[in-house]
Amino acid sequence: MKSRAAIALEAGKPLELVEIDVDGPKAGEVLVRIVNTAVCHTDAFTLSGADPEGLFPSVLGHEGAGIVEEVGEGVTSLVPGDHVIPLYTAECGKCKFCLSGKTNLCSSVRATQGRGLMPDGTSRFSLDGKMLHHYMGTSTFSEYTVVSEVSLAKVSKQAPLDKICLLGCGVTTGIGAVMNTAKVEPGATVAIFGLGAIGLAAIQGAVMAKASRIIAIDLNEDKFDLARKFGATDFVNPSKLSVPVQEAIVEMTDGGVDYSFECIGNVNVMRAALECAHKGWGESIIIGVAGAGEEISTRPFQLVTGRVWKGSAFGGVKGRTELPGYVDRYMNGAINLDDFVTHQMPFEKINDAFDLLHEGKSIRTVLSF
Amino acid sequence: MKSRAAIALEAGKPLELVEIDVDGPKAGEVLVRIVNTAVCHTDAFTLSGADPEGLFPSVLGHEGAGIVEEVGEGVTSLVPGDHVIPLYTAECGKCKFCLSGKTNLCSSVRATQGRGLMPDGTSRFSLDGKMLHHYMGTSTFSEYTVVSEVSLAKVSKQAPLDKICLLGCGVTTGIGAVMNTAKVEPGATVAIFGLGAIGLAAIQGAVMAKASRIIAIDLNEDKFDLARKFGATDFVNPSKLSVPVQEAIVEMTDGGVDYSFECIGNVNVMRAALECAHKGWGESIIIGVAGAGEEISTRPFQLVTGRVWKGSAFGGVKGRTELPGYVDRYMNGAINLDDFVTHQMPFEKINDAFDLLHEGKSIRTVLSF
Repeated sequence: MKSRAAIALEAGKPLELVEIDVDGPKAGEVLVRIVNTAVCHTDAFTLSGADPEGLFPSVLGHEGAGIVEEVGEGVTSLVPGDHVIPLYTAECGKCKFCLSGKTNLCSSVRATQGRGLMPDGTSRFSLDGKMLHHYMGTSTFSEYTVVSEVSLAKVSKQAPLDKICLLGCGVTTGIGAVMNTAKVEPGATVAIFGLGAIGLAAIQGAVMAKASRIIAIDLNEDKFDLARKFGATDFVNPSKLSVPVQEAIVEMTDGGVDYSFECIGNVNVMRAALECAHKGWGESIIIGVAGAGEEISTRPFQLVTGRVWKGSAFGGVKGRTELPGYVDRYMNGAINLDDFVTHQMPFEKINDAFDLLHEGKSIRTVLSF
Repeated sequence: MKSRAAIALEAGKPLELVEIDVDGPKAGEVLVRIVNTAVCHTDAFTLSGADPEGLFPSVLGHEGAGIVEEVGEGVTSLVPGDHVIPLYTAECGKCKFCLSGKTNLCSSVRATQGRGLMPDGTSRFSLDGKMLHHYMGTSTFSEYTVVSEVSLAKVSKQAPLDKICLLGCGVTTGIGAVMNTAKVEPGATVAIFGLGAIGLAAIQGAVMAKASRIIAIDLNEDKFDLARKFGATDFVNPSKLSVPVQEAIVEMTDGGVDYSFECIGNVNVMRAALECAHKGWGESIIIGVAGAGEEISTRPFQLVTGRVWKGSAFGGVKGRTELPGYVDRYMNGAINLDDFVTHQMPFEKINDAFDLLHEGKSIRTVLSF
């Protein structure tokens, strides 16, 4: 079938709006009509060419929501008409990782997903007979996309797709990192580095966790108002300090915060986030994705004196079992998604959405097919 | 009073055996007659001059056991005749750290301890009228030493001091890192880097925790026999591998170990230890103390994909409340200390003990006054 899509032909170029060919779902696969998709920094990172694992040409996009159109052979958990959020972190329920009870990093489709292919090693996308790669197992920048059954969370049909698409990545990642990875407890102090969608979601998570103090850190003070709206209590612009930001935060908090979150992908900030954590128990969670080959470093003394360095992918959330609950919490008012949506556009304006992201003017632009 | 002591006059020189002057205990202090002391790498590290915080001249030594000789004003928890193990990690029970329930890093005497002084800012040691620094709050290389009440664990009088002195540092650190910091669970796989006293104690801890597989790693294969005796199940000499040791361990264990422990103080090994931990849940614990200014590094992807980097000081053990139980467990056979004691000597041969340590020929030399 034909599908409207925005494809990444080569690194560093804008997406091209074209009509691509999408093959029907094979065994264990599902054809989804994407209704809404947002643009996330990871899409921009891959498109820029900085992602060493980026493949071209490809159909990017991993933060979307849609409706099941057709299911392939053997698919039992979904039927046409179901509302779904595609998952770049699958959940098969059967692999060593899913069975461990310790992680959401399902291995079932990982190998082929990393090669931009469906689990059988082929692609469902083509343009003029030439294969296009899938991306993150989701490829939400095509109105019709094919996704593995294990990579789809079935969610409430009552929920607006133009909001819950944000649960496909950023918001879930930020809230989950606070709730699942850090397990922030009531009364804890928290520092959030970077006030994009993930950082704002982490603030929201910290409020849900009843943190007593939530320090929001960004070079762009335009972000502070929204951070305050989400519940941040303190605001720091590192460029206006005469000391390294970690020192300033240790000073502000009489020894450091209980939990810190790096929501940018900058290895220097990752170090600052660790080093502003309290001696003896402070934990720092890396959420941002760093550039190729970049490394974090610190003095081991930081860890020997009780700090813990962790990371979080998709907020430690198991998509198929937990994401429906996130949608329900949005519906009952416990999770705020609306304030992340700073812009709404028709899908055809997707390159404008990338521009807004790069300019720091948007938190999330939601596109409608 | 006069006391036999081995003092560090300057960096890089052997200790000098002299008779020093020891003042009586002031308020909150205790005069202890050290009966046995062992020599640990940290003493050697400081003596070498590589420790930027090392102070000279000083009375080193932090792994000892003795008997209370006299108590200062206000000391209520100890009386002359009590058997004690000096603690370089105090436990006051009152500071923010002690009250947190999250760490053993008591802050009560830290500032002055780091400056080689008693809490009132003075020293009890002198030689020919010239002040000598205390060391780690313990200074066990003097037959008579003055220690803060909060830095003494009162232990069973039935326990042999020439064995339980080892609980003052290395053995407790290794066992505690496994039990308290990592909380290794039954069936877990474990890698131990470095088979000195701490590494061997970590092996012992892993056996106590019922780990299913305990991989012992050292460049010196002479250490493997003792590691096997303590319960290691696999042995790796990184110098005999054609791939980095982390790759070899990931291969051996189908994805990595559940827990790894760095017991050396080498920042490159710290990285290897982290990177051999299993994706999704593997935790790596730094126990070794690195050289001045050295830094650990890795790709943040290692953490984002679920590994956790931690450190441990004195095994997370709160000395005054927990160390008596370690002594009891030695007495009832649950903890093996005897096999750590590879050499026994009179105190006067202390420089020979340092030589054996540097040559890798001893695990612990226990000295008797």
